[in-house]
Amino acid sequence: MSKVVAFGEIMLRFSTERHLRFSQAKAFTASYGGGEFNVCVSLANYGINAEFVTRLPENEIGYCAVQEMRKMNVESKSIVYGGERLGTYYLETGAGTRGSNVVYDRAHSSMATIQKGDIDWKKVLEGATWFHFSGISAAISQSAAEACLEAVQIAHELGLTISCDLNYRSKLWQYGKTPSEVMPELLKYSHVILGDIDTAYFMLGIPKVNPDYQDEKSLPALYSKLYELCPNLKTVATTLRYSVSASHQRIGGVLFDGKTIFNAAVQEVTPVIDRVGSGDAFMGGLIYGLVEYKEDKQKALDFAVAACCLKHTIAGDYNLVTLKEVENMAGGNSAGLVSR
Amino acid sequence: MSKVVAFGEIMLRFSTERHLRFSQAKAFTASYGGGEFNVCVSLANYGINAEFVTRLPENEIGYCAVQEMRKMNVESKSIVYGGERLGTYYLETGAGTRGSNVVYDRAHSSMATIQKGDIDWKKVLEGATWFHFSGISAAISQSAAEACLEAVQIAHELGLTISCDLNYRSKLWQYGKTPSEVMPELLKYSHVILGDIDTAYFMLGIPKVNPDYQDEKSLPALYSKLYELCPNLKTVATTLRYSVSASHQRIGGVLFDGKTIFNAAVQEVTPVIDRVGSGDAFMGGLIYGLVEYKEDKQKALDFAVAACCLKHTIAGDYNLVTLKEVENMAGGNSAGLVSR
Amino acid sequence: MSKVVAFGEIMLRFSTERHLRFSQAKAFTASYGGGEFNVCVSLANYGINAEFVTRLPENEIGYCAVQEMRKMNVESKSIVYGGERLGTYYLETGAGTRGSNVVYDRAHSSMATIQKGDIDWKKVLEGATWFHFSGISAAISQSAAEACLEAVQIAHELGLTISCDLNYRSKLWQYGKTPSEVMPELLKYSHVILGDIDTAYFMLGIPKVNPDYQDEKSLPALYSKLYELCPNLKTVATTLRYSVSASHQRIGGVLFDGKTIFNAAVQEVTPVIDRVGSGDAFMGGLIYGLVEYKEDKQKALDFAVAACCLKHTIAGDYNLVTLKEVENMAGGNSAGLVSR
Amino acid sequence: MSKVVAFGEIMLRFSTERHLRFSQAKAFTASYGGGEFNVCVSLANYGINAEFVTRLPENEIGYCAVQEMRKMNVESKSIVYGGERLGTYYLETGAGTRGSNVVYDRAHSSMATIQKGDIDWKKVLEGATWFHFSGISAAISQSAAEACLEAVQIAHELGLTISCDLNYRSKLWQYGKTPSEVMPELLKYSHVILGDIDTAYFMLGIPKVNPDYQDEKSLPALYSKLYELCPNLKTVATTLRYSVSASHQRIGGVLFDGKTIFNAAVQEVTPVIDRVGSGDAFMGGLIYGLVEYKEDKQKALDFAVAACCLKHTIAGDYNLVTLKEVENMAGGNSAGLVSR
Amino acid sequence: MSKVVAFGEIMLRFSTERHLRFSQAKAFTASYGGGEFNVCVSLANYGINAEFVTRLPENEIGYCAVQEMRKMNVESKSIVYGGERLGTYYLETGAGTRGSNVVYDRAHSSMATIQKGDIDWKKVLEGATWFHFSGISAAISQSAAEACLEAVQIAHELGLTISCDLNYRSKLWQYGKTPSEVMPELLKYSHVILGDIDTAYFMLGIPKVNPDYQDEKSLPALYSKLYELCPNLKTVATTLRYSVSASHQRIGGVLFDGKTIFNAAVQEVTPVIDRVGSGDAFMGGLIYGLVEYKEDKQKALDFAVAACCLKHTIAGDYNLVTLKEVENMAGGNSAGLVSR
Amino acid sequence: MSKVVAFGEIMLRFSTERHLRFSQAKAFTASYGGGEFNVCVSLANYGINAEFVTRLPENEIGYCAVQEMRKMNVESKSIVYGGERLGTYYLETGAGTRGSNVVYDRAHSSMATIQKGDIDWKKVLEGATWFHFSGISAAISQSAAEACLEAVQIAHELGLTISCDLNYRSKLWQYGKTPSEVMPELLKYSHVILGDIDTAYFMLGIPKVNPDYQDEKSLPALYSKLYELCPNLKTVATTLRYSVSASHQRIGGVLFDGKTIFNAAVQEVTPVIDRVGSGDAFMGGLIYGLVEYKEDKQKALDFAVAACCLKHTIAGDYNLVTLKEVENMAGGNSAGLVSR
Repeated sequence: MSKVVAFGEIMLRFSTERHLRFSQAKAFTASYGGGEFNVCVSLANYGINAEFVTRLPENEIGYCAVQEMRKMNVESKSIVYGGERLGTYYLETGAGTRGSNVVYDRAHSSMATIQKGDIDWKKVLEGATWFHFSGISAAISQSAAEACLEAVQIAHELGLTISCDLNYRSKLWQYGKTPSEVMPELLKYSHVILGDIDTAYFMLGIPKVNPDYQDEKSLPALYSKLYELCPNLKTVATTLRYSVSASHQRIGGVLFDGKTIFNAAVQEVTPVIDRVGSGDAFMGGLIYGLVEYKEDKQKALDFAVAACCLKHTIAGDYNLVTLKEVENMAGGNSAGLVSR
Repeated sequence: MSKVVAFGEIMLRFSTERHLRFSQAKAFTASYGGGEFNVCVSLANYGINAEFVTRLPENEIGYCAVQEMRKMNVESKSIVYGGERLGTYYLETGAGTRGSNVVYDRAHSSMATIQKGDIDWKKVLEGATWFHFSGISAAISQSAAEACLEAVQIAHELGLTISCDLNYRSKLWQYGKTPSEVMPELLKYSHVILGDIDTAYFMLGIPKVNPDYQDEKSLPALYSKLYELCPNLKTVATTLRYSVSASHQRIGGVLFDGKTIFNAAVQEVTPVIDRVGSGDAFMGGLIYGLVEYKEDKQKALDFAVAACCLKHTIAGDYNLVTLKEVENMAGGNSAGLVSR
Repeated sequence: MSKVVAFGEIMLRFSTERHLRFSQAKAFTASYGGGEFNVCVSLANYGINAEFVTRLPENEIGYCAVQEMRKMNVESKSIVYGGERLGTYYLETGAGTRGSNVVYDRAHSSMATIQKGDIDWKKVLEGATWFHFSGISAAISQSAAEACLEAVQIAHELGLTISCDLNYRSKLWQYGKTPSEVMPELLKYSHVILGDIDTAYFMLGIPKVNPDYQDEKSLPALYSKLYELCPNLKTVATTLRYSVSASHQRIGGVLFDGKTIFNAAVQEVTPVIDRVGSGDAFMGGLIYGLVEYKEDKQKALDFAVAACCLKHTIAGDYNLVTLKEVENMAGGNSAGLVSR
Repeated sequence: MSKVVAFGEIMLRFSTERHLRFSQAKAFTASYGGGEFNVCVSLANYGINAEFVTRLPENEIGYCAVQEMRKMNVESKSIVYGGERLGTYYLETGAGTRGSNVVYDRAHSSMATIQKGDIDWKKVLEGATWFHFSGISAAISQSAAEACLEAVQIAHELGLTISCDLNYRSKLWQYGKTPSEVMPELLKYSHVILGDIDTAYFMLGIPKVNPDYQDEKSLPALYSKLYELCPNLKTVATTLRYSVSASHQRIGGVLFDGKTIFNAAVQEVTPVIDRVGSGDAFMGGLIYGLVEYKEDKQKALDFAVAACCLKHTIAGDYNLVTLKEVENMAGGNSAGLVSR
Repeated sequence: MSKVVAFGEIMLRFSTERHLRFSQAKAFTASYGGGEFNVCVSLANYGINAEFVTRLPENEIGYCAVQEMRKMNVESKSIVYGGERLGTYYLETGAGTRGSNVVYDRAHSSMATIQKGDIDWKKVLEGATWFHFSGISAAISQSAAEACLEAVQIAHELGLTISCDLNYRSKLWQYGKTPSEVMPELLKYSHVILGDIDTAYFMLGIPKVNPDYQDEKSLPALYSKLYELCPNLKTVATTLRYSVSASHQRIGGVLFDGKTIFNAAVQEVTPVIDRVGSGDAFMGGLIYGLVEYKEDKQKALDFAVAACCLKHTIAGDYNLVTLKEVENMAGGNSAGLVSR
Repeated sequence: MSKVVAFGEIMLRFSTERHLRFSQAKAFTASYGGGEFNVCVSLANYGINAEFVTRLPENEIGYCAVQEMRKMNVESKSIVYGGERLGTYYLETGAGTRGSNVVYDRAHSSMATIQKGDIDWKKVLEGATWFHFSGISAAISQSAAEACLEAVQIAHELGLTISCDLNYRSKLWQYGKTPSEVMPELLKYSHVILGDIDTAYFMLGIPKVNPDYQDEKSLPALYSKLYELCPNLKTVATTLRYSVSASHQRIGGVLFDGKTIFNAAVQEVTPVIDRVGSGDAFMGGLIYGLVEYKEDKQKALDFAVAACCLKHTIAGDYNLVTLKEVENMAGGNSAGLVSR
């Protein structure tokens, strides 16, 4: 039976309601999320055993994060405690032509100050079949990048399938290294990579040109390059996102298994309730698809795209949908009928 | 002067706000509604005397339902008390590709345990000109179906116009009978029937194929069949609904008076604030149109469709619009201008 | 350095949330706004010194309005106190085919009972470079119209640039005079006028035909007429608004400088969070553009249209956007991307 | 069977929640109330037919007030429409040593501009047994005072029992007359008067010394004086209020029937949820007691005091309690047990 | 290591906020609770392994209840699914002299229709050291009482310590049996009983006289009687509650171990945020105290009383306090200082 | 004319509503506050020119803090920008026996990383008459302590009156120094010191024994000691606080001017809406009293105590009261009457 362990940061998110701007908010909705944790929630919702590993401050706010993990049925038993604070971020939800706005307040978090050796990975990964991480752990601090590399290496030794969501964030990477100095070492153990068109630049050290541009035609060349750099790579996928407005997205996906390029039909997503975490929803759907549908890559990709689309209709960071709901949409039913 | 009496169930509805999923909700918005009551509210808003008859539990929650009726100017003087509980239901409002979700908790309600004879229909219907019921009363329990038949028969004896909204709900009909065993007897007294393409199956006992599919072309044949089965039938109408997504509907309508098929132009309805009760809004508009516009069936149908469309912009079960607003939209003005 | 002084009314606005109708609201969101004040907020956001002059009641509610001005960085030092009440208005936000609804409760406000001479305009306008007013001050009462004329005349003597947003409101003008009896005198000092197609009728005393109709072709003739009537006129502009529904607007703009007609591309605005104040956002953008972009009228117009579009995504009366956000959109970037 | 008709003003009240100050409130809770309407709600709750007569603006806000009346089971059929606005007021709820704060915005309301003759009192009072008014109608405007006198005189002619709550408000009486110039004429027809120690001053024109001071000892002399001035007076009563803090009141009451002084035990009321309307709750309880307990004046007084105490635990202007709840407390049970 | 298994019902509770009455509530706060589940939460908070066993409907609302259990760290793995509905109840929170009001809507719940044999108790209780139930399971239906007896008997066979909170509810026991016909058989296996002065009547079939009366003097005689009837009884305890008002309670406790009567000092509890579940908090504290403090019965009782007092300050059914907080208060520190 | 400049930190505070525990909160109310800023707000409310100086992050959250300052009429023109984050803290509001709980998240704030020299104090203090700081700036970091000392020394050079609120916080002082190593140097320039009984320990390096204990008798000896250590000391004051429960405090005060001990009567404060910032309210009242009442030290102390008491009734960190309200209470009027 599959068991996925993910390593990363969980943050407390403060979001404004009803599209209010930060300066209008007298209250913030509090929720918890983070790229790798969001993947765990997706997997738990689909019936896959999922465990999340992180470092939390030993205070009431840290304990609240653990309660959220338990509620979401994500195993939290290997979490370590220490450090000063839970990372937080502020989200102002846009609408139409006004984009959403994120203000990070995650520096000096307990996860950012984690050290290699803080977690007993051999014990944690016992019985696990899959290890997931993302480029964010490598981006927040030198020591977190090192702790992540340690985990990846032990997962590799133990023979787990390893996946990585590149998750490039221009506002991070403040500790003196560039992605191209850090990521190649982490990615060389990876079997599954989720990344967009910027990946090549990201890996090769060329600055990102346009954060949301999607040039489908350049993907095959990019994928080939990735296969060269990552000896263990089995699957690479890309979320295609066309942003009509903050409230209207078009979502597709591409998957390459080293031989064939698979494409998923582009879906209309409108209105957008919350697009944060939709990439993580894709990643969660992709892992599920690869685990459950095995050789049917098209089905895996369609599942990932459907999961990603549905996430846009869910408030909060993670994808509160059932397996049946994603299957239903992946199967072509997207009319949003009332169930009664 | 017209006076409409409707018989059915009123429920307390618990809905999540801001498209939250059930598991995210720390609070539920409470409102009251039910197919036949919703029709009464529409009629009261249009200036028609409307009375609602039901059975309520004798507790604070039952009294709240009565306050709501009074607030909405729907006469409540003939309500009887008894039984254990007010039926409730939970509504999770969808968005885009994620449909809304209804969880019924209406079993064992005071209305479901009503008995034939609980209501003195001769007295209640004195002075009334129209009696309205729906397939829901027949669907919730054997005794409610019997109580409904009693009402219909007395209304028939007293010479009232009788209307029925078929309102098929697959989650009901749990008491051992199928619609086709119960409905024909009820419908044979009806002068006005609102039903969709499933009606034929519903009457003839063939299982429903696709709950939202609308095959306009099959309607004439269906209507002819209905006229054969229902000797008193004067008017049959159908709401046409094309669901682009949970947030975008296209609404049209068809009416047949035994001779002519009338069609109303399809309207774009986006965004959808709340589509629950939009069929009841059509029904309410139809009764108004038939009463007030008499021989102008096209105008009656246009009014019903406009009412239905506007309902999608109103939170809650019933259609909080004025006569002037519906007339305005039925007259072609749907640009949503600010009145100031 | 530019300093803009605006004169007008600030009101307390009570709006329903989540598209609730008035009769459903148990609470109203309170905010402050008014055409001329909204222009000041826009200018302050763009970095222009802005001062708002009005008359307020000397009570807690009046003080709250002043706090709001300070928060928005709009100078409030010349406000005078007196009178009975702060004007209020009720806003029910529509959706789709249901338009928004405004109920004014502004009669007898402290601003409506202001008298010529209440404000020491020579002192107030010292150091100012621009004076802005709107047709609303002329519409609320005879004495407010007189107080406004006094201000305009002193601004003229002092050599300020004078702008006017015609802002026709059919529900005002209740004090016995028509716009065409009052406005020409006020407008003859104006250098900048913002007005729609109704302006001609407005100035010439012919009743308004259709409040939202936009007949672009008639604009040149209208503009020529205005130039005849207003000897100081330098710039006239019009917001073009095509209302698909209450939730979907198309916004463009036209500007004439006496020689050339400039047109701005029509933008899709959907969803509409709050369209109240979008005309004021246009006006604020136009003043900014004329001040900062001087001879580049096209750029000034594009800025005004972008500001107007963005306002539709902001709850409340005034346009809570930064200079950078408007420039970004005026520059063609309207995809609503997440900033993170 | 008794039927009480009350005449007065209903206002829309905007209150801050959770003890927020006005300047902290981003939203106001909206409710409806007014001294004489509040009395009607009490009576309707106790099972007495109650009708409220007033003048309302013909707009959505006025209609909301009518919906509230219907919800509360208070007859609204004789209401007349006209005028500009519904009176409003702002309430900031205090706590402990910080008192509550009321800002009235009721000038120029539809009720304040009512004229003698606007209401067909002969028709309205047909079948009624009791007429209730308060000093507030006399305080808001000359024309309202005249309209009130007209009503009182016709009620007198028709032989109704007439009651008046003096309800002195220092912030009203702004139209150029003092209470002592207006009230004696109104009170000479009254059979029941509710007033505190200030009543003497109020009637005799001596300024109020201390608005909350309660000098029980002076009451007999005051009462004797009142009996001299009011030839029809049968019962006079006073609410005794000792204010420990905004959150802690002590409530008692005194009643004089021309022969005997009755006293009710002082009750501890803490915490205070909302003290606005507690005097109206006393008045409502007193009318009920006089009607139902007839000669048992002590019981009537105890009922009024219990009703007044319970009102302090209810948010909003009127007393949402059942007959059983008041009887229970009047009977000595004030321990606040859970009913389950 | 101790492991406590509790069997009972968990309900969805709908409570009004800010002391609103039912008829004022437009929204209900949703939370989950139930006597035996509340005990589990207390134990989990104190670090004791706790598992809750019940029967839930297989729908979204049932799943929400499970999420709540997980969040609270209460094991839910042995829950069985089936039946029609999750029991619900409505809570109106009183204040001062107005008591709280509960309207149950728990009939026909999945737990009420549980059958003996539905749960594999041998498997469930493997490894457990303590079994807890309450009189509520016996009160809701014949079949639930039988299922409860089955559990108790198997727990007895397996040698677990058995505790029962009598939890008399006059509104239950509607299925045709009286407590005295059912409870003695259940209690004869119990080692720990929590019950108030009504217990004797409850066991002996004499009707309850006064639900909140606490006659300390009669307790010794009652306790002796209980020891006669329950051969396994080791500890009996009683919560003493003196209700000054709904907002002010005085809480003490008594414990008898067959030899000595222990008394805990009475504590002032004001204000009361939520008293529902305070008895369950006492029970949870008592089990903790008996398990951890073993022979120090006074300490166990003090802990239970402190837990009960603290519960009154927590919104919702269960006692969200830490071990340290209860120890702190049991140790005499109740001044409510700020921790910073 | 007096002008007070205060230097310190402003934080974004996240508080739970309605006494919810952290783990129950789905939303946090956002407000801004900090000891020295709170003093400025008090002074601005009383009509004293007040300026606040701090260092803020250059992001949207930092700008929100500035808006709050402007709204509160506190000058913000000398604020410097830089650093990573705005300090935040979480507040869980207790009730009765459960104390409030604060979780600080203020490490690494822009204020904590301020450097000596970042602020041009000579320019900032030009025209000022009073400089205020607190022990918190010295407690958050070495560099903030140094920046504070720089400010104090320049204020001393410029001849300003200098005041300090010792404000001991056990959770701060984490940077390697104890208060007694840092504070004496800062205090030697101070003319006014606010501190409680712990002050002696604080200055002499003896650990705090009991954070809330108030031993009035030891104050004279403590005060004498302080006068020895602080050559410029003119006035020392202490807030006396007796904590009955989190909801009930008793507040008094003592002031010593080097010759006479003044005592203020102890006031009952119940209920407590929010006690955070009540010490700052005392400080603000004290500065006002010393500035305005000059030689009447008793009046100054009474004003400070009244301000402190009133603060407990105000939600949020700072004291939203008017001069008149404090004077009214200082004058003995604390009955919390309604103003209407």
